[in-house]
Amino acid sequence: MLPQYTVDGVISIKALEEKIIREGTVLPGNILKVGGFLNHRIDTAFLKEIGIEIARLYENTGVNKILTIEASGIAIAVAAGFAMNVPVVFAKKHKSSNVEGEVYSSSVESFTHNTVYNVVVSKEYLSSDDKILIVDDFLANGNALLGLAELVETAGAEVVGAAIAIEKGFQCGGEKLRKKGMRVESLAIVENMTENSLTFRPQNNK
Amino acid sequence: MLPQYTVDGVISIKALEEKIIREGTVLPGNILKVGGFLNHRIDTAFLKEIGIEIARLYENTGVNKILTIEASGIAIAVAAGFAMNVPVVFAKKHKSSNVEGEVYSSSVESFTHNTVYNVVVSKEYLSSDDKILIVDDFLANGNALLGLAELVETAGAEVVGAAIAIEKGFQCGGEKLRKKGMRVESLAIVENMTENSLTFRPQNNK
Repeated sequence: MLPQYTVDGVISIKALEEKIIREGTVLPGNILKVGGFLNHRIDTAFLKEIGIEIARLYENTGVNKILTIEASGIAIAVAAGFAMNVPVVFAKKHKSSNVEGEVYSSSVESFTHNTVYNVVVSKEYLSSDDKILIVDDFLANGNALLGLAELVETAGAEVVGAAIAIEKGFQCGGEKLRKKGMRVESLAIVENMTENSLTFRPQNNK
Repeated sequence: MLPQYTVDGVISIKALEEKIIREGTVLPGNILKVGGFLNHRIDTAFLKEIGIEIARLYENTGVNKILTIEASGIAIAVAAGFAMNVPVVFAKKHKSSNVEGEVYSSSVESFTHNTVYNVVVSKEYLSSDDKILIVDDFLANGNALLGLAELVETAGAEVVGAAIAIEKGFQCGGEKLRKKGMRVESLAIVENMTENSLTFRPQNNK
């Protein structure tokens, strides 16, 4: 049962943009609420196609592992992992009692929650020959992605790129990461948003 | 690329048991660490089959929505949601700034983290005609499942049952929930565990 807004079985940038316009809500504080399909209630048929589109964008790049961060990155990472046939590792937001032994750790400032937290990955699950795709639901100021990239680099592994569902193009994260040379693919880039209007940045490859 | 330990394309209880024995570690404090394939690094090929097995167990039950709890329940819930073609809702562990409006809330005592937290679901995403399957990675003392079931009941919806990857049969959760009349399907039930040995409870339908 594929959603009607797809083209040739592949999610089009239009599909996600239309879904954001139809089902998203802009809240005060530059928050784009997409809890109805992406990060609280998950439209699994749509999510499956997001995974397929990420796999298409990173085809033949040698990615052997996906890295994301709990909690809302996990669903998208799993969808991409299914489509790419690679394992998913999710970074945890604090050192919990069931992460034993040595961990890679970096600190991240959260835009949504206005706090600083540690992201940790057990050293067992990142190795120096990994070619990593970083996946997340949102890219705003880029701090979560930078923290994840730092973990990968500390492990001596390679960041092949990042795949994001929704980038807030009016914040600095995407520009900052691309200037550092990171390949960043965002399925939709919101250029401007107010409570009454949303505009998207045109993209050629989607 | 299916793992070799499956039988007829369906994950067998043996497959998960063998994977727990081969890749799991028992840590002090009754913690069974399965971070290598289930809840830190995710073996996506194996996860896909967990989803298919959950779909098989709850075939023709009318389930129209899966409810889980962040973070490590999400991957399994998404795999099951893909296999069952139903949406997934994940409860959040605190009222975050992007859950607007009214929420259903209940409090849960965490075995792993030795804390009490609130689980919340936006009222928009549970409705009284829902037939809910609750999914999680672990069942120990059953508090998370009870909290989720409470949310569903508050919404006036029906809990069709629960699907769990690993139940700690030596803790009271499974017994408590089944005595209350909840259908609980655990893909593997650990009967006893020490740092050197693991035994599983025999099950007929898996």
